[in-house]
Amino acid sequence: MAESPSKRAQNGGKKGKVVLAYSGGLDTSCILVWLIEEGYDVVAYTADVGQGDDYDAIRKKAMKCGAIDYVVKDLKRDFVVENIWPAVQANAKYEDRYLLGTALARPCISKGIIEVVKEHNAQAVSHGATGKGNDQVRFELSCYALHPSIEIIAPWKMPEFYNRFQGRKDLFEYAAAHDIPLPVTTSAPWSMDGNLMHISYEAGVLEDPKHEAPVDIYQMTTDPDKSPSKPDKLEIEFKKGIPVSVTHLGDKTVKTDPLELFLYLNEIGGRQGVGRIDIVENRYIGMKSRGVYECPAGEILITAHMDIESFTMDKAVRRIKQTLSLRFSEQCYEGYWYSPECEFTRDCIDRSQECVEGKVTVTVYKGHVYINARESAQSLYNEELVSMDVKGDYEPVDALGFIKVNAVRLKEYRRLRGVTFAGEATK
Amino acid sequence: MAESPSKRAQNGGKKGKVVLAYSGGLDTSCILVWLIEEGYDVVAYTADVGQGDDYDAIRKKAMKCGAIDYVVKDLKRDFVVENIWPAVQANAKYEDRYLLGTALARPCISKGIIEVVKEHNAQAVSHGATGKGNDQVRFELSCYALHPSIEIIAPWKMPEFYNRFQGRKDLFEYAAAHDIPLPVTTSAPWSMDGNLMHISYEAGVLEDPKHEAPVDIYQMTTDPDKSPSKPDKLEIEFKKGIPVSVTHLGDKTVKTDPLELFLYLNEIGGRQGVGRIDIVENRYIGMKSRGVYECPAGEILITAHMDIESFTMDKAVRRIKQTLSLRFSEQCYEGYWYSPECEFTRDCIDRSQECVEGKVTVTVYKGHVYINARESAQSLYNEELVSMDVKGDYEPVDALGFIKVNAVRLKEYRRLRGVTFAGEATK
Amino acid sequence: MAESPSKRAQNGGKKGKVVLAYSGGLDTSCILVWLIEEGYDVVAYTADVGQGDDYDAIRKKAMKCGAIDYVVKDLKRDFVVENIWPAVQANAKYEDRYLLGTALARPCISKGIIEVVKEHNAQAVSHGATGKGNDQVRFELSCYALHPSIEIIAPWKMPEFYNRFQGRKDLFEYAAAHDIPLPVTTSAPWSMDGNLMHISYEAGVLEDPKHEAPVDIYQMTTDPDKSPSKPDKLEIEFKKGIPVSVTHLGDKTVKTDPLELFLYLNEIGGRQGVGRIDIVENRYIGMKSRGVYECPAGEILITAHMDIESFTMDKAVRRIKQTLSLRFSEQCYEGYWYSPECEFTRDCIDRSQECVEGKVTVTVYKGHVYINARESAQSLYNEELVSMDVKGDYEPVDALGFIKVNAVRLKEYRRLRGVTFAGEATK
Amino acid sequence: MAESPSKRAQNGGKKGKVVLAYSGGLDTSCILVWLIEEGYDVVAYTADVGQGDDYDAIRKKAMKCGAIDYVVKDLKRDFVVENIWPAVQANAKYEDRYLLGTALARPCISKGIIEVVKEHNAQAVSHGATGKGNDQVRFELSCYALHPSIEIIAPWKMPEFYNRFQGRKDLFEYAAAHDIPLPVTTSAPWSMDGNLMHISYEAGVLEDPKHEAPVDIYQMTTDPDKSPSKPDKLEIEFKKGIPVSVTHLGDKTVKTDPLELFLYLNEIGGRQGVGRIDIVENRYIGMKSRGVYECPAGEILITAHMDIESFTMDKAVRRIKQTLSLRFSEQCYEGYWYSPECEFTRDCIDRSQECVEGKVTVTVYKGHVYINARESAQSLYNEELVSMDVKGDYEPVDALGFIKVNAVRLKEYRRLRGVTFAGEATK
Repeated sequence: MAESPSKRAQNGGKKGKVVLAYSGGLDTSCILVWLIEEGYDVVAYTADVGQGDDYDAIRKKAMKCGAIDYVVKDLKRDFVVENIWPAVQANAKYEDRYLLGTALARPCISKGIIEVVKEHNAQAVSHGATGKGNDQVRFELSCYALHPSIEIIAPWKMPEFYNRFQGRKDLFEYAAAHDIPLPVTTSAPWSMDGNLMHISYEAGVLEDPKHEAPVDIYQMTTDPDKSPSKPDKLEIEFKKGIPVSVTHLGDKTVKTDPLELFLYLNEIGGRQGVGRIDIVENRYIGMKSRGVYECPAGEILITAHMDIESFTMDKAVRRIKQTLSLRFSEQCYEGYWYSPECEFTRDCIDRSQECVEGKVTVTVYKGHVYINARESAQSLYNEELVSMDVKGDYEPVDALGFIKVNAVRLKEYRRLRGVTFAGEATK
Repeated sequence: MAESPSKRAQNGGKKGKVVLAYSGGLDTSCILVWLIEEGYDVVAYTADVGQGDDYDAIRKKAMKCGAIDYVVKDLKRDFVVENIWPAVQANAKYEDRYLLGTALARPCISKGIIEVVKEHNAQAVSHGATGKGNDQVRFELSCYALHPSIEIIAPWKMPEFYNRFQGRKDLFEYAAAHDIPLPVTTSAPWSMDGNLMHISYEAGVLEDPKHEAPVDIYQMTTDPDKSPSKPDKLEIEFKKGIPVSVTHLGDKTVKTDPLELFLYLNEIGGRQGVGRIDIVENRYIGMKSRGVYECPAGEILITAHMDIESFTMDKAVRRIKQTLSLRFSEQCYEGYWYSPECEFTRDCIDRSQECVEGKVTVTVYKGHVYINARESAQSLYNEELVSMDVKGDYEPVDALGFIKVNAVRLKEYRRLRGVTFAGEATK
Repeated sequence: MAESPSKRAQNGGKKGKVVLAYSGGLDTSCILVWLIEEGYDVVAYTADVGQGDDYDAIRKKAMKCGAIDYVVKDLKRDFVVENIWPAVQANAKYEDRYLLGTALARPCISKGIIEVVKEHNAQAVSHGATGKGNDQVRFELSCYALHPSIEIIAPWKMPEFYNRFQGRKDLFEYAAAHDIPLPVTTSAPWSMDGNLMHISYEAGVLEDPKHEAPVDIYQMTTDPDKSPSKPDKLEIEFKKGIPVSVTHLGDKTVKTDPLELFLYLNEIGGRQGVGRIDIVENRYIGMKSRGVYECPAGEILITAHMDIESFTMDKAVRRIKQTLSLRFSEQCYEGYWYSPECEFTRDCIDRSQECVEGKVTVTVYKGHVYINARESAQSLYNEELVSMDVKGDYEPVDALGFIKVNAVRLKEYRRLRGVTFAGEATK
Repeated sequence: MAESPSKRAQNGGKKGKVVLAYSGGLDTSCILVWLIEEGYDVVAYTADVGQGDDYDAIRKKAMKCGAIDYVVKDLKRDFVVENIWPAVQANAKYEDRYLLGTALARPCISKGIIEVVKEHNAQAVSHGATGKGNDQVRFELSCYALHPSIEIIAPWKMPEFYNRFQGRKDLFEYAAAHDIPLPVTTSAPWSMDGNLMHISYEAGVLEDPKHEAPVDIYQMTTDPDKSPSKPDKLEIEFKKGIPVSVTHLGDKTVKTDPLELFLYLNEIGGRQGVGRIDIVENRYIGMKSRGVYECPAGEILITAHMDIESFTMDKAVRRIKQTLSLRFSEQCYEGYWYSPECEFTRDCIDRSQECVEGKVTVTVYKGHVYINARESAQSLYNEELVSMDVKGDYEPVDALGFIKVNAVRLKEYRRLRGVTFAGEATK
């Protein structure tokens, strides 16, 4: 028997108004009802960052569960322009491999929820992220940074909640008892999270790191052995380190709108099976976790950006920027998008991109992205200077002095220390 | 008419003994003869680092040109163990992409030449590297570091030589005039350098960065669209960050000897078209150059090593080691292998690898290397801890405090500064 | 009326045995009694890290308060050798100024408490550090790292405790009610913490950062305007980056024992008023705090060590080591002494110190440490090479090439970009 | 007999016009005459960066030596504003100690010489820096960067010059033979270089690193034991990390003009004996050298700036900025002021200083600078938050979770590895 309607009636709104990040799934639906029971008025909120859900259906479900309002914000373009583009400028990869698809979306979603908080004059936000993951951190740090006095209700970290709902069975029973529509499909034996940049898969069978990811897990990318036997060749143009146009050199498709351009690269990269990775990464909270990701457009763009950057950026600037990029990736992964240090880092990186412009030709084929060629009006490459056949302004004899002076320190070291290097014959 | 024999006779050995890094090609053959003309006794030396030349033929050519001796040193195993293994431990990539195949071979070759110098009681070394490239630096810095009083004769940086030999035509004429055997094949319209780790292609038609590399340029790797339609699945085992065994999970081939293991991965990676890159990089001497590389085994090993490292290395150690790896790549690229800083960096990295052990399963297919799974007795991954379904020692409520304390700084910043972040609604 | 005796009798030991870090002060005495009330058997523990207390008096007080045992561990030598020496090797300064006197002592104290836990077969540790400081973190992280299953009882973070004891008045009343001996002296209007390395002062009147520290606050150092008018001149000898002997060049005093040497430098530095700083630093928990410190021996040693290090360490090694030192200072400050990353960093730094040996002459006078001279058998300084009057092996003409090659990149940048630098005339 | 007049007449101007950095000393006077002999028209140029010379006397000497023109540029204000202020923002110290007084002046002087080149339509510049020092590099790299096609004539690196002038005696004889006015005073047994920021002393008796600097060497600073017995107390105000006003809290002197402010701090620091250091540093060209420096205003300003920066800059931003500052110091020391990387680094650092403002009180006394207090409208210090007596928004219980989550990784490491840390009892 449903006990809640009366309880809801009794408590409704006593504790104020909370905006719940609502996906329409079982977890957040149970949380929605539970919050009402606890005495909150609940505004359900979905950020559309390209996950492609049926927002009308979600709205209906939210209202049926008792939300006083439902808001869906289309943040797809913001996500691309505000979050993904800086990551492309940074060639951002967490721990050298993960393209941060989830991490980049979180500040965007959080920015939206704080807007809803202000629009609805709410006091609190709530979310369904677990207490062991990165997303809780990203979500909450972003909210605190944007709205320091916000209250955050995270049921999966509240003993009264997580001790009550110890497994999916408890959620199902609660849903049944409270007229919460149940999901019609059986859920996969893993958890997934998607947006227009990527889909991540983790948990369930993936928790065993020596268990290979099932072949049918991927939703954005075709398996390379089923992908087309014909490569896609693209020309990608950058300005200030940001992609401004993509041209398919085969069928002459051209995309210049940021969102369309990104989605188009997802389409090409997806059909060519590009951007799959299977990694064990270090969560911010100190445990290692195994994740499987697919990130087609991101992989293509970072590969191409890295090339045009090397072509147009001074070598010494590049080294400093490389370190800043490592910091950016960590800040982003750990939820510090809205922090003084991440804003500082983004500003510095953006400064480094002033002349990162030009066109890169890439071939996307069977799971891999190949760089073919590049050109730029801001290139620091000088064909004549580098040519073995042209002496030009460069006098080879100068290299003698260059090397001799650089050797001073090495010779002195050897002479004064008399050391022998590992691997060196000592006879 | 050949003027040299008499001149050679007159000057022969007056200036002492020089060991020439000799490839048997047109350049170094001309240099050999020219050195004799200049009054040196020349010991020709070839380092076998897996380039697969016919050393008997080279010996004959050297002796015919007038060398007083010819020495070939088989350094293949040294190269793998002393130079490539540390690079694998470091996940070494120069400027995020180049696996350093040439740079790693240079200290190995130099170590060999200094051994020959000592064995033959010579005073000088000579080489045919040009005055615009990295190799002159790597070669000379290594020699100075290992033998501070060595004299280095680099004809391509001596005006009397490079003003005399301004093009290939001058070399051909000199060769004809001095009975130097001419190459029978027309050389490719680019220059290449190979060893067992990689082949590099540069110069010639490649000097135009918007000119795509010819499809037939590659010699170690099959074009992905001609590669087998069947993936190769391998299990690679590491100890202390070094590969100790490779097992083909299909045909059960097993390789454990370092050199055999590496060559086998070249074979597998080669037939699957793995390890091709086309980049513009920054030379040490300050100019950008365009290089095309293929490095099959290296690509497989670094991909696998990075995975087992993430699995077994503490997160905070990893960050420090990541910075050390960047330094290592730069040191190696710039010719500082035999330097106090590179030896220090290698020692630190080696220290970080103490527990980097375990097995990684990889799929090599159509130009790409996929990680499938990993296991290790030294894993720092705790399946039970990370599981969403197991609470274990980890109390989700603790994450509340973790986040709140981390938010203190962000909230204060917002409150005290009242700033708005870029992209944030300001209404 | 004292309610506790009976309560203590009722609960005594029910919850097991706890080792309390006990100073004998009001706070930890109240905690001792409170823990007994809560049902614990309490072993009181004091780490003697040079704070110079009367341990017999503390023992009596502990036993009077109801401790089942009292342990004092003399960790002074351990503190110097295990914790301070690595900091000297690192030239460790947190945020460029703070010599980490408190932070270095915490792992030492924690190591001792875990030993007591094992010796007494206890289940828990307790401490009186507040919930806003760094020490709680350093103490608890060290304990968890050394004994993962340890339970930590931190009353100042337990609402039932801190809501009960909201001010010193509550502690006084509690002490009075439980026969806890009260401190006889009025406490200073600031809080202080001392050990043989330093004394720190914070809180109270110091909380206002524009309020100058009282002139009479300092206990280890003489005010420079009251210090002797005669400098002390010392020769400090290092081996492997560690001080092995100090000689007073005036009165010929010699100290070689680590502890005696360190205390002697405190004496000299103290009378000369050396090592005072007044800073605002960033606590690990994200708030800024103002601290006043005096650290005489530390200041002398790091000044001297930095000098001998520069004299004997290769320039490029120094740069890498400098970054490692920054990491070490942060790790140490934030409580991660017993962590994989700090042990790794210490090992790397230790590796860098292999040849850091020799003698440095310093003058200590009126608050400042001056370097006068240095000598070392491992010096990498070559007087002949550097002399303007000796050409030696160095050919000035080589510098031409060195500069020209280094200028290639700059000239190209100017030519290809046509930029003007800030401050440059553009006419 | 003077051979030169006729030779000068014969060659004069045949090779074009050269701008010589001219100090009026023996070296550059000889170079001036030698350049004329070699066939150049010489414009003598002095940059007034505060060295306090008699420029009229220098002009007369230059013209007497045969210069076609003499130009003195007053660059004192530029030097302070364009070069020293960025160094203060960076807290720039090369190798942790050297405040870069010479290095900062070189780009300023070079900017001036290139202006003269353009004003006089010259083809070349010349200077008297030796071939073993840093200044040649700084000077030449700056000139090449600002004017890529400039020709640089560095006689001390030209064998025809340095083989002719092997010692001071040769210069004296040449001067005598060419009517070059001889210096009236005997030169000190060391070399020195000064500007308004500092004076450096090196060479001569200082070349022996165990030889103490003579007590009478210092020219800007009073010996601490002769300095006033009364401290000077100053309030220094910063905006955007730059000092905008200095107030003497004793006599109420106020300075706000950048140049006056800097000179005033030199006066105060000078009489208090502040800013002396004696170090062995690593030159860019790879040799270690010993330098003695005095830099009074710089020492005061960096000490004060570091304090106000810590007070107003976010902790995480500070860490990133700290690394950028290290890079800036290296770039500056090595002569790369006018480089893409240094301009990038300065821009990033400048970005970090946006809110670095407020007032710092310092005491300058007997060779040391003490921070007393600070205040700022942009402070990120929150007295209420940090107070032990105020709970405010900070709940101590949160620290429990903070520490526990941070301990997850440490506990796991211990459990899974079972390692024992160095120094830990293993019983």
